Amino acid sequence: MSERRSPPPTERELELIDRYWRAANYLSIGQIYLMDNPLLREPLRPEHIKPRLLGHWGTTPGLNFIYAHLNRVIKARDGDVLYVCGPGHGGPGMVANTYLEGTYSEVYPDISQDADGMRKLFRQFSFPGGIPSHVAPETPGSIHEGGELGYALVHAFGAAFDNPGLVVACVVGDGEAETGPLAAAWHSTKFLNPARDGAVLPILHLNGYKIANPTILSRTSDEDLRSLFVGFGYEPIFVEGHEPADMHRQMAAAFDRAFDTIESLQASARNGSPTAGVPRWPMIVLRSPKGWTGPKEVDGKKVEGFWRAHQVPVANCRGDDAHRQILEEWMRSYRPEDLFDADGRLRPELRALAPSGEKRMGATPYANGGRMRRELQLPNIRDHAVSVDVRGASQVQSTEILGRYLRDVMRLNAEAKNFRIFGPDETESNRLGAVFEQTDRVWMQEIEDYDVHLGRDGRVMEVLSEHLCQGWLEGYLLTGRHGLFSCYEAFIHIIDSMFNQHAKWLKVSRGLDWREPVSSLNYLLTSHVWRQDHNGFSHQDPGFVDLVANKKADVVRIYLPPDANTLLWVGDHCLRTYDRINVIVAGKQPESQYLTIDEAVKHCEEGIGVWEWASFEKDSIGPDVVMACAGDVPTMETLAAVMLLHEAIPDLKIRTVNVVDLLAMQDPQQHPHGLDDARFDGIFTKGRPVIFAYHGYPYLIHRLTYRRTNHGNIHVRGFVEEGTTTTPFDMTVLNEVDRYHLALEAIARVPDLAEKVPDVIADLHAKLDAHRAFVRERGEDMPEIRNWRWARSS
Amino acid sequence: MSERRSPPPTERELELIDRYWRAANYLSIGQIYLMDNPLLREPLRPEHIKPRLLGHWGTTPGLNFIYAHLNRVIKARDGDVLYVCGPGHGGPGMVANTYLEGTYSEVYPDISQDADGMRKLFRQFSFPGGIPSHVAPETPGSIHEGGELGYALVHAFGAAFDNPGLVVACVVGDGEAETGPLAAAWHSTKFLNPARDGAVLPILHLNGYKIANPTILSRTSDEDLRSLFVGFGYEPIFVEGHEPADMHRQMAAAFDRAFDTIESLQASARNGSPTAGVPRWPMIVLRSPKGWTGPKEVDGKKVEGFWRAHQVPVANCRGDDAHRQILEEWMRSYRPEDLFDADGRLRPELRALAPSGEKRMGATPYANGGRMRRELQLPNIRDHAVSVDVRGASQVQSTEILGRYLRDVMRLNAEAKNFRIFGPDETESNRLGAVFEQTDRVWMQEIEDYDVHLGRDGRVMEVLSEHLCQGWLEGYLLTGRHGLFSCYEAFIHIIDSMFNQHAKWLKVSRGLDWREPVSSLNYLLTSHVWRQDHNGFSHQDPGFVDLVANKKADVVRIYLPPDANTLLWVGDHCLRTYDRINVIVAGKQPESQYLTIDEAVKHCEEGIGVWEWASFEKDSIGPDVVMACAGDVPTMETLAAVMLLHEAIPDLKIRTVNVVDLLAMQDPQQHPHGLDDARFDGIFTKGRPVIFAYHGYPYLIHRLTYRRTNHGNIHVRGFVEEGTTTTPFDMTVLNEVDRYHLALEAIARVPDLAEKVPDVIADLHAKLDAHRAFVRERGEDMPEIRNWRWARSS
Repeated sequence: MSERRSPPPTERELELIDRYWRAANYLSIGQIYLMDNPLLREPLRPEHIKPRLLGHWGTTPGLNFIYAHLNRVIKARDGDVLYVCGPGHGGPGMVANTYLEGTYSEVYPDISQDADGMRKLFRQFSFPGGIPSHVAPETPGSIHEGGELGYALVHAFGAAFDNPGLVVACVVGDGEAETGPLAAAWHSTKFLNPARDGAVLPILHLNGYKIANPTILSRTSDEDLRSLFVGFGYEPIFVEGHEPADMHRQMAAAFDRAFDTIESLQASARNGSPTAGVPRWPMIVLRSPKGWTGPKEVDGKKVEGFWRAHQVPVANCRGDDAHRQILEEWMRSYRPEDLFDADGRLRPELRALAPSGEKRMGATPYANGGRMRRELQLPNIRDHAVSVDVRGASQVQSTEILGRYLRDVMRLNAEAKNFRIFGPDETESNRLGAVFEQTDRVWMQEIEDYDVHLGRDGRVMEVLSEHLCQGWLEGYLLTGRHGLFSCYEAFIHIIDSMFNQHAKWLKVSRGLDWREPVSSLNYLLTSHVWRQDHNGFSHQDPGFVDLVANKKADVVRIYLPPDANTLLWVGDHCLRTYDRINVIVAGKQPESQYLTIDEAVKHCEEGIGVWEWASFEKDSIGPDVVMACAGDVPTMETLAAVMLLHEAIPDLKIRTVNVVDLLAMQDPQQHPHGLDDARFDGIFTKGRPVIFAYHGYPYLIHRLTYRRTNHGNIHVRGFVEEGTTTTPFDMTVLNEVDRYHLALEAIARVPDLAEKVPDVIADLHAKLDAHRAFVRERGEDMPEIRNWRWARSS
Repeated sequence: MSERRSPPPTERELELIDRYWRAANYLSIGQIYLMDNPLLREPLRPEHIKPRLLGHWGTTPGLNFIYAHLNRVIKARDGDVLYVCGPGHGGPGMVANTYLEGTYSEVYPDISQDADGMRKLFRQFSFPGGIPSHVAPETPGSIHEGGELGYALVHAFGAAFDNPGLVVACVVGDGEAETGPLAAAWHSTKFLNPARDGAVLPILHLNGYKIANPTILSRTSDEDLRSLFVGFGYEPIFVEGHEPADMHRQMAAAFDRAFDTIESLQASARNGSPTAGVPRWPMIVLRSPKGWTGPKEVDGKKVEGFWRAHQVPVANCRGDDAHRQILEEWMRSYRPEDLFDADGRLRPELRALAPSGEKRMGATPYANGGRMRRELQLPNIRDHAVSVDVRGASQVQSTEILGRYLRDVMRLNAEAKNFRIFGPDETESNRLGAVFEQTDRVWMQEIEDYDVHLGRDGRVMEVLSEHLCQGWLEGYLLTGRHGLFSCYEAFIHIIDSMFNQHAKWLKVSRGLDWREPVSSLNYLLTSHVWRQDHNGFSHQDPGFVDLVANKKADVVRIYLPPDANTLLWVGDHCLRTYDRINVIVAGKQPESQYLTIDEAVKHCEEGIGVWEWASFEKDSIGPDVVMACAGDVPTMETLAAVMLLHEAIPDLKIRTVNVVDLLAMQDPQQHPHGLDDARFDGIFTKGRPVIFAYHGYPYLIHRLTYRRTNHGNIHVRGFVEEGTTTTPFDMTVLNEVDRYHLALEAIARVPDLAEKVPDVIADLHAKLDAHRAFVRERGEDMPEIRNWRWARSS
C-alpha cells in the first residue's frame, strides 16, 4: 500500500480544512449556548440563550481539529477510520461533525441540514428530552462514551483486533492519561498483530488542564515524553502550537507520516514474511490550548489556554449583557456566513471535504457493530456432555468440560475470526486449557523455544490486567464480534466500574432502533470464594453479582450452574444472546455430577427446579422443609445435608431445590426471567421453612425474594466474610454454610422437631467438632469429606 | 548526608549476605513443604511433608535477595526502611526474613528461634488455624497484602508522604507491573516533595513470568525499559544475571548508588534553596530467574527460570519418592548446617547481619501505624454550624460548610503534618475550596504564574486517578496518619476492589492485639446521582454503598446527612474514629437547611429519628402513614410530599422519619449501630404503611430491614437506573422518587384513602404532567420547584 502515499495538502486545501474546523467549532458552541437564532441572523437576545448552560468547551476545538484532518486522510486514502473520543465530554464536537458530514440527519431526520435543523440540533443538546452532553450511544459513529475516563485506548485496540482494514484513531485526553487503565493500555501493541489486525493511532491531546489543575503529561518536557512513548514501544510525532495555519500544516504532515508508517508496517507484515516482533507503531502528541479559539479572558481572568475553559467559558449569558456580547463576538469570529448558506446548509466546497457513505466516521459500520456481526457457529453441547449414569459417581472439573466446548467454538469460527477469550493469565489455571489444542495465547514480543502456547495468531488474550481484558472485550463486542472473559471471581471487582458503564451503554443502545444488537458480554467467574484455599482471604469475594443485580433487569443475567452439564447449557446459551451481560459463576475443582444433559437442559430452561431425585417427600401434600441451593459448593453441601437428615430422620419430608438462573428468584415485574408467584410458591411452598445455601453474600437472596409469599421463612446462609488460607470444607464451616450447619438449621426450623431428635443434633455438633480437630491437626479435610459424593441412582 | 556514603561491601561481607539469603530461601521452602524434620536431621519421609502443598516459590528468592541487601544498607546508614512487597504471594519470604531477624518470635513468642519454633513456623504456613499463604496483616513489617495486584507502588508513596526520615523500598513484580493502577503510580514522584516527604525506591523485579505467561516488561529490551523509566522521570539502575556472587556485587552497588542519590537529592532540597521541580529519583530494575536456586528441571520439564516455578515447583512430595528426593536435595543445597546451629538458631555471624530493634524491617513502627498515630486536633463543629431560625429559610451548599471545617482541620494540624485530603481533581468542584485558604494542591512540576492554589507544600492531593487517591490514602493511614477522600459518587466504583481489600485488611488487623488501631478511611461522596444533570447517565450510580454493606459490620459505616449541620457532625465524627471505613454521601448544591446544630447532634447520635416538626400526628396513637427518607434529595422530596399531603388532606396523620446512619436500619445482631426492634417499631410502627424515599438503589433498604416487624409494609423508592442529562427535578421524576409520586404512593397505601380523595390524586397527576411539559419546553424546572424550600417555623 505504500505506493498510495498521498502528496501533502495544498494551502488551499488547508484553508478549506480550517473553514470546516470553524464550522464544527461554531456548531459546538451553538449546542452549548443557544435555543434559537442559530445562524446569528439577528443580535443575540436573552431568550436565545438556554436557561441552563451545560457542556464542555475546553476539549472540543481539539477534537474538531482532529476530526477535520482525519476526513482529509480518509478521502485521500479511501480508508476506514473509527474515531474513539476519549474526552467524551466533548460531545458537542462529535455531534457537530456527524451533523456536518450528514450522518446525523440520516440517523435523526428531524435534525435536518438547514436552519431549522440547526436550531433543533442546538436546542436538544443537554436539554430535557434531548441528548446527553457527552458522547453516548445516541451519538452516531461512537462505541465509546468517555464519561468515566480511562478506557479510550483499550476500547480502540479491542475494535482493531481482527479488523485488518480498520484504523482506529483514538484521542486520549491528558486528564484521562493519568488514569491507571489508560496507562496500562499503551502496552496493547504487544498483542496487536499487523498481519491479522487493524491499527490503532493514539493521539495524545495535551491541552494542559483538567477541571481545576494542570495535567502531569502536559507539564512533562517533550524530551521525557518522547522517552516515555519510545519506552512504551511507539514512534511519537509531535504537533505543537496554537496558530491555526501552522497547526494545520503540522497536523496534516503528522497524519500523513503516521498513516504512511501504518501502511508500511502492515504491508511488510502481510507480505508473508514472518513477523519480527512488535512493530514500532506511530502515535501523535498534540499540544494545543484548552478552549482553543475561545475567549481569551472573561471578567479579567485567563480562559483560553487555562482550566477556566473546561466547561462553559462564559457563564450567565442570559442575564449578563456583557457576557452575551462576548458570546456573540466569539461565535461571529468563526464567520458563520462563510460557512453556511442562507438556508443554513454547509457550503458545498466544505461539504465536499467529508468522505461519503460509510467512509464517514459517523456512518462507519464498525461503530454499529451489530451491523457487522456474524452469528457464531456453535457446537452441539451434547457432544461434550458428561454421562451421568449414577448421580455423583464421577468427579469432574466442570470448567474443563466447558473448555472442550470452547475449543470447538474456536475451531468452528477460526475462519470467521470473530471469537476470542480474554483473561488475566488464568485460562489454564481456570481449566479451560483445551482451547490451546486449537489456538494459542497471542504474543507479539519475543517467543522462546521453551514457551508453550504462545503465538502471533493466538485468539486467547492474557495480560495481568482485568481492565485491559474487559476493555479489549468491550471494544471487540461493540464492533460486532464475540467473546468470553474468564476471571478469578474476587478480582472481577477490579472492573466493577467498567461493567457499570457497559451496562449503561447497553441499556441506552437497546432503546435506539438504529443500533443493531451486539453480542453479550459473558463472564465466567471461577476460582471462586469457596475454593481459594490456595490464596486466602484477599481472594475471597463473591460480591460482583450484587453489583450486577442493581442494573436494569433486561440487561443482566446471573447463572450458577451446579455441575458440568448445566455449565455447558449456560455457556452455550450465553454465547447465543445479545445486548446483555451474562455472569456465570462456576468452580474449577473436581465435583460430583448430578444431571444428565437432558435433565440439565430442562433444569436450566426452567431456571429453578425441584430435584425430585434428591427429595424425600413421599406422596405428601408438601415437605416439612425445603433445602434450597444456588452455586456448586452450596449445592454439594445441601445434598450432603439432605442425606444426613434423611439417614438420621427418615420420616422428615425434605424437598431439594436448585437455582441456576438467579434472577428467576425475583418476581416477573422486576425481571423478565422471574418466576410467577404461583410457580414460585409451588416450589418454595407458602409457609414451610426454606434453608437456602447460597454461593455469595446471603443478603442478595433476601433482596430478590422480599416480595414472595414465603419470604419470612427463607433462611439464607452464604459467605459472611469469614475467610483465610484453609481447607475447602473448613471454608464452608467458617461461614456456617456446611452440611452440618445446614442440617442443624433445618432441624431448628421445622416446628417441634428439635426436641424429638436431640441425638441427631448432638451427633451433628460432634461431627463439627471432629472436623475442627482433624483439620487443625492434619492440615486437610477428613477422608469422608474429601471423598464425599452424592451416590444414589437416579 | 552525602558524607555518610558507605564503602562498597567486601567479599567477606557479600559471602555472609549470600549465606543469609540461603537461610531465608531454606526457611521459605520449609514453610511450603514441611510439617516436621525442619533441619533435615534425618532423610525426608512422607509424613514430614504437608498433605496440601500451598504457596508461591517463584518470586520468593528474589524477595529474599532484596531483603538481605536492604539489611546491609540499613545497618550501614542507620536508616529507616519500610519494605513494601508487591508480590505479596511471596509470603514465605517475608515471614522467613522477619523470623531470621527475630521480629517474628517477638510478635509470636510461640514461634521461637530454635528447632521447635522452626517446626511450628513451617507447619503453620498455609495450614488450617495457621497463617495465610500471602503477606497479610499477620505478617510483621507489612502494610501491604499484595493478594490483589496493582497497589504496591501507590501504597509505598502513601507511606512516604510526610515521613521525611523514611525510605520505602517497594518491590514491584513484573506481573503486577502490567496492571493499570501500578502503571499510573509511577507518576507519583510528581507529588513527592524531597524536602518534606520521605523517599520511595522502586525495585522492578523482572523474573520473567506470571502464572502461565511471560511478562511484558521482562520481554522488553533494556534500551526500551531505560527509555520508559527515564520518561516516567526516574534514573533506572539495572541488576541482571543469575550467578549469585556476581549478583550480590551488582545489587550492593545498585543499592549504594540509589541510597546515595536519594540522600543527595534530599540534602539539596532540605538546605533551604527552592525546589527545582521534580527530582530524578533512582529506581532499580532487577532481572533474576523465577524460582532462582530452585530445581532446574522436574520430570524433564524446565522449572527454574520459567513459569513452572511460580507456585510449588515439585509437587506430590508425599506420595512420589523421586519428587521427595528432588525436594531434599534442593533444600540441602543451601547447606542448612552452615546456617543454623545444633539448636536450630541462626548462627551468630549471620544474626549480626540484621539491623536491631526498630530498624529491623519487621519491627519498624511505620508498618504498625497505630503506634505512630497522633490524634487529630479538631475544631468545634459549633463554630461552623449553620443557623436555622426558620427551617428551610436559607439555601446552603452543605459541602461548602464542611469545607470550612476541613480548612480548620488543616490549620490545627499544619504543624503535625498528618492530615491530607485526596481527590481526583474535584476538591473545588465538590465545594471544599475553603481548604485552599489554608493550603495548596501539592504540585512538583513546573508552576506557571497564572496557576492557582498549586504549591510544593500543598496538603491537597489531586490527580485524575481514583486508584492513586485511594492507594495514597491507604498508605498514609496505615502509617499512622489521617485523611479524607472526596470523590464523585459514581466513580468511586473505580476503587471497589481496593475498598474490598482495605476492609479485609482492617477486619483481620482488628483481631491482632499487636496491631494498634489506625485512623478510619473516610469517603465523602458528592456530585451524586441526583445532581449529575451536568454529565448524565454515565455519572449516575449510587451503588457503592451496596458493596460497602456486604463487609463486616464492625468495619463499615454509611452516613447520609440531609443538611449542613448533620454533615458537620458526621464529618467530625468520622475523623475521630479508627479501624473503620466511613462513607458519607452528601450533595454539593444549595439545599434547604432543617436542623439546628443541637438538633443535628441529637439526630445523628440516634442515627434515625422522627422529625416532629415535619409530622402531623396530632395526639393520635399512631400515624396513618410514615414518610421516611435517607439522603439529601430524597429528604427534600419527602418534605415536599408531606406538605402537599398535609395541605390537600389535613386530617391525614403523617409521621416524617429521617435516616442518617443507614446501617442503623439493620437489627443489632447484624450491625453494632442497629436499632433494637422496640425502638425500630416505635419509629416505623408495627403495621402502618411506610413510604421510604432512599438515595440509592431501593433494594438495599429491603435487604437491611427484612427482619423487621413492619417490613412487609415498607415501600421503597430510589434510583432505578433511569438517567440522562436533564434537570434536577426531572431526574427524581424519571425514577419516581419525586414529591408527587411519593404523595401518590402514600395515598395508595393508606387503607381506604384513595377513593376519598380522587381530586387530590388527579391534581398530583396534573402537576406531574405540567412538569413534564414545562421542562421539555423550557429546559429548566418550574419556578415552584426551583424555588421550593421547606418553610415553616420550628
